[in-house]
This record gives sequence, C-alpha cells and structure tokens, in this order.
Amino acid sequence: MAASIRFLVLADGLFAPRTSKTANSCIRYAPEKVVAVLDPTKAGRRVQEILGFGGEIPIVGSFDEGFAFAPNALLVGIAPQGGRLPDSWRSVIRAAMSHGMDVWSGLHTFLSDDPEFVALAGEHGVTLHDLRKPPRDLPVATGRVREVNATVILTVGVDCNIGKMTAQLQLRDALRERGVKVAFVPTGQTGILVEGWGISVDAVIADFIAGAAERLVLEAAETDADIILVEGQGSLIHPGYSGVTYGLMHGSLPHAMIMCGQPSRTEITNNAWVAIPPLSELIRMHEQVLAPLRASPVIGVSLNTFDLSDADAQAAIELASRDTGLAATDPVRFDAVPLIDAILAFHGARMSEGVGAA
Amino acid sequence: MAASIRFLVLADGLFAPRTSKTANSCIRYAPEKVVAVLDPTKAGRRVQEILGFGGEIPIVGSFDEGFAFAPNALLVGIAPQGGRLPDSWRSVIRAAMSHGMDVWSGLHTFLSDDPEFVALAGEHGVTLHDLRKPPRDLPVATGRVREVNATVILTVGVDCNIGKMTAQLQLRDALRERGVKVAFVPTGQTGILVEGWGISVDAVIADFIAGAAERLVLEAAETDADIILVEGQGSLIHPGYSGVTYGLMHGSLPHAMIMCGQPSRTEITNNAWVAIPPLSELIRMHEQVLAPLRASPVIGVSLNTFDLSDADAQAAIELASRDTGLAATDPVRFDAVPLIDAILAFHGARMSEGVGAA
Repeated sequence: MAASIRFLVLADGLFAPRTSKTANSCIRYAPEKVVAVLDPTKAGRRVQEILGFGGEIPIVGSFDEGFAFAPNALLVGIAPQGGRLPDSWRSVIRAAMSHGMDVWSGLHTFLSDDPEFVALAGEHGVTLHDLRKPPRDLPVATGRVREVNATVILTVGVDCNIGKMTAQLQLRDALRERGVKVAFVPTGQTGILVEGWGISVDAVIADFIAGAAERLVLEAAETDADIILVEGQGSLIHPGYSGVTYGLMHGSLPHAMIMCGQPSRTEITNNAWVAIPPLSELIRMHEQVLAPLRASPVIGVSLNTFDLSDADAQAAIELASRDTGLAATDPVRFDAVPLIDAILAFHGARMSEGVGAA
Repeated sequence: MAASIRFLVLADGLFAPRTSKTANSCIRYAPEKVVAVLDPTKAGRRVQEILGFGGEIPIVGSFDEGFAFAPNALLVGIAPQGGRLPDSWRSVIRAAMSHGMDVWSGLHTFLSDDPEFVALAGEHGVTLHDLRKPPRDLPVATGRVREVNATVILTVGVDCNIGKMTAQLQLRDALRERGVKVAFVPTGQTGILVEGWGISVDAVIADFIAGAAERLVLEAAETDADIILVEGQGSLIHPGYSGVTYGLMHGSLPHAMIMCGQPSRTEITNNAWVAIPPLSELIRMHEQVLAPLRASPVIGVSLNTFDLSDADAQAAIELASRDTGLAATDPVRFDAVPLIDAILAFHGARMSEGVGAA
C-alpha cells in the first residue's frame, strides 16, 4: 500500500467499537491514512468520541462531504448483514470510482467479482483491492520454509480476536527500536490493510492454508530480516476456525511461539460450551502438535488486560508468568520488554547453535 | 447418485494404478456402475489387467466405441498435468453431453464454471456434477453437532492415502451385516462419487472446514442411523493438509476415532523429512487435541498391510494391538470383526450411560 494513501472509510450507519472492525483496525494502526469516516448517523462528530481512539478524524454524512477532504481511496470498513451489498453502499462505491479513487474492501464477497464494479474500474482506471481474495496459484505446503535462516515467531492464542496481530505489531516496533531487522507477516485482512501485502489465510481453499503460510514466510525471508513475526489466526480450541490455526502453524513452522491470552476470558467467544483450559495446558498442546514437524517452544505470554484495573492486570501478568515459567506482559498497556528479551535470547541461542541445527 | 448410473470413464492415456485415482476408486468401490474405460493407449484390454481388480470391464479407444456399451454418464477419471483440460478431453466431454449424458468430474477446475460446458449442458438438458465443488452457503461450525444422538466415529490416519475411506466402507458393510443402522459420511471426491452425496472438505474455504463437517454429520443424523461413520482426510502430521484434518476433527466432533496406519510406511509421502511417530504417540495426540471440545478416545487400529506377507501382516497387527492396547485388524485383507466389536462395545456403553452424558 502506498504511504500516501488517503482513505475515506465507508461505515454507513455501523461505525461503532464492535460493528466496524475493518474501519476500526485501519484507524487504530494507520490513522495517518484516514481522512474521514462516512456514517450519516454520526455526522459532525469525531472518531475519538466513538472509538476512544483516532483523535480528530472527522465523521461525515455524505460522499461529497468526505470527498472535500481529498481522499484518494475508499475503504469499505464494514460488513453487510447477510452478504449482499446494500444499494446505498454500492452508490458510494460507484461515486468513489467515478472520482478516480481505488476501492479497498475486506468483504467476503469480492468487489473484483462484481461485473458492474469491474467495468467501472476499467472505465475510470482505478483498482479494486479485495483484502480477503487469495492468489490463484497457491501451492500445497512442502516444508520448504525450513530453508529460512531467520528466526520465525508465531503468535497463537486462547481464542479469536484476542490480540495476536496487535502483539506482533508491538513486538515489531520494539525490536526495530533495538535495531533488529524484523519482518511482519500479515495473515488476515487487517494486517494486509495496514502492511499492504499478505494473504488472508482463512479465505484460501482448505488444501492450501499451510501453502499460503509457507509462501508468506518465504516472501518475508527475502527481506533479509533476522526475525520474522507471523500474525496468528484463530485458536487451536476454536470450534469454527481451528483448522486455519493448525494449518498456519504447520505451514509457517515457527521456531518459537508467543501465547496470547486474556485473563478475563474463560470461554470461547460465541461458544460458551468450550471452556478455555489453563495457559500451561494450552502451551503444552501447541508444542505437542508442532513437535512431529519441528520442535518449537512457546517462549512468552502476551496478555490482553484492557478490561482489568492496573493492579489486577499486574497480578494477572505475574500469575501467568509464575504458572507458565515464561516471560509475560501486556505489550500494549505496559511494555514489550519481557517478550523482546525472550525473543532475542531465543534468537541468540539459535544463532550460536548454528542455524542448520534447528 | 442414481443406482442405475452407467459410467463411461475417461482416462485418456493415463489409465494406471497410480495416475487415474478417481477412475480407479470408482471401479474399486462401484464396479457395477462402470460400463467401459476410455483410454486409446490400452484399448482392447480389460480393467483387471491394468489395475489388478475391476474384472472384465472393457477398455475402449474412442467415445463411439464406449457409447456402444450404453453409458448414461461420463466420469472424468483423471487429472490433467498443470490444470488446463486438454482439447482431446474437451471433445469427449462435448460428445458425451451431445449424446444426453451427464458429466461427473473430480477435477479442481470445475466444469460448471466453464461457459462452453454450461451452455452445452443447458442445450442438451444434462447435468454437470463437480465432485469437489462445495456448496455456497456453508456455515462456520458452532458445535451444533453435539445434539446428534448417534455415535459418531471418525477415521484418522498417520498419512494421506492410507485407507481412511476404505476402512469406513468395510466397517459400514460389516455393521450392516449385523443389522446395525449405520450412515457413512463422504468427505472427499471418491466417497462422494461412490455415495452420491457429501462435501469435499479440502475444497471449501478454510473458515468453513469445520462447518462443512458439522453440516455433513447433521445431515447423516437425519437418516436415523445409530452409528455415523465419517470418512477421514489427510493426517494431523501432514505438512500440507493437516489443517483440513484438524478442522474435520473439530467439526465432526467424533465420540470415538479409529486410527489408520500402514506398518511399512515410516515417513510422510513426498515429505520424507516428517517421520511417522509410533501409533501410541499419534493416538495420544489425536485424543489431546479433541479433549478441549469433546473427550474422544481412539478405540481401534485399522492397518493397511497390502504390501506385507500374510505372516508379516499378522505380526504387524499383533504388534499394533499390543503397543496400543486396542483392537487392531486389516479390515480389507482379514476381517473387520475386532473393530466392529470395539465400535459396538463403545456404542453400547455410551447408550447405557445415557446419550446426553457424552
């Protein structure tokens, strides 16, 4: 994604902490790329008031008002109930293209499969970017990723939507501050939107989950990074998405993992029948399923403590560290140092053993 | 699939034990449905000579010769190198449709996405059956399958292509002989071809692997079966396909599993870097990854001993039984009784505990 992108974000009536996930992620991780949010039900307010972050970014009531802020791209930042695009959204998408704007979308239904949009994009010389659309020529994974010299670290988690991408982005920034050459591998639509490359591994044909992950790590390895941070997806105990998580683990073949948890969460979201086991048990499970392909330890715990008091958050981190015997922190709320130290110690040990040994 | 189907099987130049997998599976499991095989390089011979099974089914050199055997459907029984259909195959497919024959295909490239074939099918009033094409409206799995009262048994295996479907078909037949109401759930193209329903779970979008498995088990439960046998796919230690295996396990939520192995196989096919661990270790791994969602034991071992002498096969079965403490047999070569007894004992115990308890 060009650094100079200026998004108008379509969030028609749905701009809110829980309903406009793609819009919110873009604003959280790349606020400098957002010039305005289009939501007539909240026009005149500021993004900060709605999300609690995003500062002074304005919310506008129409495409024309938004266009006054000189966007060069439209981001469809919401998902429709059902699947069909409402006519009001289609007219905004048409307006954007007719004003020469590219359109980015995280929808399951691809804009680039819509004959009308494809024709309009050709007519106006603009590009349709479907964040979830996988490449056509994915391979079946074969373990070629074992040739990568860099240390590959994957985040895994106790549930979906718990901070696996956020943790990696925090770790990336902290490693860069220490002068480490690091690459981040986006595996979901938000990461792709923020980074401008990647594959939404949950959107590929099932046979190619691991192949997609393998390709991404090989691509990241070409950047000469010493450490490759792979964005995790789903959870090994999520009844719906666990196959994606498992394929991502076997395809990316991490040298080590970071376990992401949320102390206040006791059951899988929308699946209350699945109790979340103790962290130490989940850590053992992750190490065991990778073992036949690669010995890969969990080397740290990243906790999402946003809903705890400072004292409770600190206590939860200490408890997790004691229970697992691993470095633990909330890298968003506090700092990433314990995890950075764990990663660098692991990387250093691996390098001194000779890379081929892993 | 109608019982009265009469296939002409297209195997153009590739009819052989290793290259015409779809054709061979159809002939092995439903020979009564095959009237002739089309392969000009082997015209005049009999299927038995090429495959070692299939008896007197003739091999013909042209569509017209094949049509003389009064087929009512064409089965594309081979896959092209690369992906594009050769012109010679296209002309056979056209000829079949123009003679009023339905066309069945296990290709990755769907005939029903090909504008010429779609137009011809409409013109001639015939149907294109793409065995690997998933339904459009698959759900994300939510654990609804826990409402199923029948005992669900999934085959799992040490590798791909090791007998997970074959074992279930043998068990189904043996259970039926004992008067048990049993349903078989096809999860791959061969099973779908033989049974006429099912979903190729490796061909769905990754997010829906478990959802597809869940739907299949719910559908099988509507038949009033007491035991539902789910065809396994891939292997938890296969670097390319393990995500499918894992999603199938979490989506079908078996009450118990049968582990399929091959004593002579020591490493994963085409992935010699992955050594196959001892059966007992793999069994523990399968039980552990299901445990957070459902306590599900492996209750028997099905061995594929086709490449061993009778004495070696018996010895391997005894060894597997001793090492795992479970019933073991080769249900194709010897008999299915040890596994049938294990399944019925498990089912009986589950029923006497009260179904809700599981």
